[in-house]
Amino acid sequence: MAPAASVAVENLNPKVLKCEYAVRGEIVIHAQRLQQQLQTQPGSLPFDQILFCNIGNPQSLGQQPVTFFREVLALCDHPCLLEKEETKSLFSADAISRAKQILATIPGRATGAYSHSQGVKGLRDAIAAGITSRDGFPANADDIFITDGASPGVHMMMQLLIRNEKDGILCPIPQYPLYSASIALHGGALVPYYLDEKTGWGLEISDLKKQLEDARSKGIDVRALVVINPGNPTGQVLAEDNQYDIVKFCKNEGLVLLADEVYQENIYVDNKKFNSFKKIARSMGYGEDDLPLVSFQSVSKGYYGECGKRGGYMEITGFSAPVREQIYKVASVNLCSNITGQILASLVMNPPKVGDESYASYKAEKDAILQSLARRAKALEDAFNKLEGISCNKAEGAMYLFPQIHLPQKAIEAAKAAKKAPDAFYVLRLLESTGIVVVPGSGFGQVPGTWHIRCTILPQEDKIPAVITRFKVFHEAFMAEYRD
Amino acid sequence: MAPAASVAVENLNPKVLKCEYAVRGEIVIHAQRLQQQLQTQPGSLPFDQILFCNIGNPQSLGQQPVTFFREVLALCDHPCLLEKEETKSLFSADAISRAKQILATIPGRATGAYSHSQGVKGLRDAIAAGITSRDGFPANADDIFITDGASPGVHMMMQLLIRNEKDGILCPIPQYPLYSASIALHGGALVPYYLDEKTGWGLEISDLKKQLEDARSKGIDVRALVVINPGNPTGQVLAEDNQYDIVKFCKNEGLVLLADEVYQENIYVDNKKFNSFKKIARSMGYGEDDLPLVSFQSVSKGYYGECGKRGGYMEITGFSAPVREQIYKVASVNLCSNITGQILASLVMNPPKVGDESYASYKAEKDAILQSLARRAKALEDAFNKLEGISCNKAEGAMYLFPQIHLPQKAIEAAKAAKKAPDAFYVLRLLESTGIVVVPGSGFGQVPGTWHIRCTILPQEDKIPAVITRFKVFHEAFMAEYRD
Repeated sequence: MAPAASVAVENLNPKVLKCEYAVRGEIVIHAQRLQQQLQTQPGSLPFDQILFCNIGNPQSLGQQPVTFFREVLALCDHPCLLEKEETKSLFSADAISRAKQILATIPGRATGAYSHSQGVKGLRDAIAAGITSRDGFPANADDIFITDGASPGVHMMMQLLIRNEKDGILCPIPQYPLYSASIALHGGALVPYYLDEKTGWGLEISDLKKQLEDARSKGIDVRALVVINPGNPTGQVLAEDNQYDIVKFCKNEGLVLLADEVYQENIYVDNKKFNSFKKIARSMGYGEDDLPLVSFQSVSKGYYGECGKRGGYMEITGFSAPVREQIYKVASVNLCSNITGQILASLVMNPPKVGDESYASYKAEKDAILQSLARRAKALEDAFNKLEGISCNKAEGAMYLFPQIHLPQKAIEAAKAAKKAPDAFYVLRLLESTGIVVVPGSGFGQVPGTWHIRCTILPQEDKIPAVITRFKVFHEAFMAEYRD
Repeated sequence: MAPAASVAVENLNPKVLKCEYAVRGEIVIHAQRLQQQLQTQPGSLPFDQILFCNIGNPQSLGQQPVTFFREVLALCDHPCLLEKEETKSLFSADAISRAKQILATIPGRATGAYSHSQGVKGLRDAIAAGITSRDGFPANADDIFITDGASPGVHMMMQLLIRNEKDGILCPIPQYPLYSASIALHGGALVPYYLDEKTGWGLEISDLKKQLEDARSKGIDVRALVVINPGNPTGQVLAEDNQYDIVKFCKNEGLVLLADEVYQENIYVDNKKFNSFKKIARSMGYGEDDLPLVSFQSVSKGYYGECGKRGGYMEITGFSAPVREQIYKVASVNLCSNITGQILASLVMNPPKVGDESYASYKAEKDAILQSLARRAKALEDAFNKLEGISCNKAEGAMYLFPQIHLPQKAIEAAKAAKKAPDAFYVLRLLESTGIVVVPGSGFGQVPGTWHIRCTILPQEDKIPAVITRFKVFHEAFMAEYRD
């Protein structure tokens, strides 16, 4: 056997080969190349910087971390500081007391030790207390699995539920490609249900039911329903009534409800609020025996945007003891998530309260970020809607806009000639003309024959007018070139 | 369909059900229960604390983190500190300058942003420089994938290489159960090769070859060879000649060499030193085209023992561009590893140097830890060898002893009656009598009919005499009870 053959690409796991992940796909790799070119040959491109609007990564675009959170992390990383007099003038009093309190819950104050596989018990207690206070229904530390961001939790559940290609997971289309990638990697079937663009990306139970029955008629054992609320890439916030219907649907059909609730703090409209699916289920009187439910949360989103810290948790309820043991075992194989991320997960669920020294500055930082995000979302939405052939729903929440681009036939043919999907062709041209990186809708899924882009609302506010102008100039030139 | 059926344990992924992970298995869960009992009912057990010798988790047993590393982490977590005058009296000058240097390599100084999927480029440059200086052969930042500890890297490679149950991975027996667990989770075949206890856990090429041919004759496509050096759970350090033969074997047989080198700093004998497999391969004149090789390193081991930080990397060489693209894609699906762990990985590969302000204290901390580990290994080894029916090889490296326990027939029968493996029966009795938690050899694999335990060398040095006494008293009572 020739050595090289052992690692020829065609001999790799076909599930890996099949998997796609658009938010870090071809366009982004091309953008990274252009960024390098700008460094080595300044002036060689029609723009002087790459603007990454492909991924919800706020701090990469200048958003500052919340001071209180970082104070606590620094103190926990280097607890010797707590014994020094100078520390009192460098850190807020409540950060110092919070760090002490956290260290007291970590056995041996050892932030460098592996924790319990579900995460440090005291930090899970704090997260459970935060959930209880958010929902008004009790949460339990034993139900919390602290994870390195939300993604590992999603992978864990897919790994558990998917046995083979006949096991299906209902996913919204458009969806965040973590779900399609994870289902592909675990060899299952993605069963799509379409969000209705005309009703602001509404989730129709009738469509859910139709897709479920359709999949079952093809012999697919549909095991779970993924709901992303607030929506990614679509930005809608589910109405309470709609959530009741979804919970009822899952109970009636025997589906696990996988609730991606990582944007729970990102809501920009007054007439909508976040309700966790657990709160909805409990307020319907459904308890542990009625509904297997997993809620995913992350420190990467919200107003905190701490993507690089890789913190998050999943709250699992409604699973039998033997199933929970299996989840625990899978978590154990990776030992534990990183302790810095664990601490941060406990902090975002228990930020400073009225009366704490940091409260005023914390509140000011939080409000400034969320209000600015709301203004940015609105400005970009309005700008998209003014352009020829673009229509954009309201961003009620999350960090994205997902406008539809009505591409002229001539552009579609040019894309075909270039062997690109039409939206990928558009996005590539946008990148090469302006340095703006967005993700083609085909990476998320869309109604066949429609074309979209996902654009984050994250460029700093003072850059938004320039982004809008660059986009407008590009789009008008593109339309002039390809208008039918 | 009844709701409960959708998540009955028997309907979960059979690969998950099959997977076992002894170092956090049944014994450890039982120990956690006893620990809770000690808290709620003090005095209710024949000991007053649980001593966890089941896992290489040094800081959980009191090992202190290296000061320099933690100073840098705290400054990177809260970079505002760098602008304050008081910081100069709280932190060493080289920690301050290192933090500034690290922040300068992170785009936007944003330690809260997702990085490149392989890790921050500047940190990979630092890791590559550390490898180059360790090996005397060049390393390249493009070959480095920074990971949340070594485990995710191992999973990534297994996911890539294993297509189905006919794909085999050669693993040492005894082995660290991450490998058996990961192979089970990805549905492949573990092809065992036995380390020879009589020659100090020697790795015989003739046995490797025999096992490879045997597996091939059964239709197994053997894709990779796992070597753990220094050994886990066995503690041996491979001789250079042996490493040459292993590299030649992999090249001749077209196998990927997966080199677990996480204990590279943990060597306790003067006549052995660590050689990375990359250094060995390069010094044989083998380059990129000769051998696909992955080296795993972790911040959890060495003298640093920063398990909770979840940092590590894999260095991949000898893979074609299309295969590397697939590895990159899989890394991308999880976005990136945690930045704190990334920074720490760059630090352990580039600790303070002669002339740096911290050098003396760093060197003192490092030497104290490694010298103490060597003394503890020797004390425990001697103690085991003095006990009736126990024989223990030298711990040349790593963090474990793996003594063989020659159990009396009567004990084996008692175990059978209790429906336990004989070594698990022994370990359970040890736990219940003394509070000492070790892992039965059956969790790692052993020659059939032999019984072992894995015990870490990590209890603090002043506790070692008490551990030895408790163990001795237990063992003598056990033998008195079951002696044939």
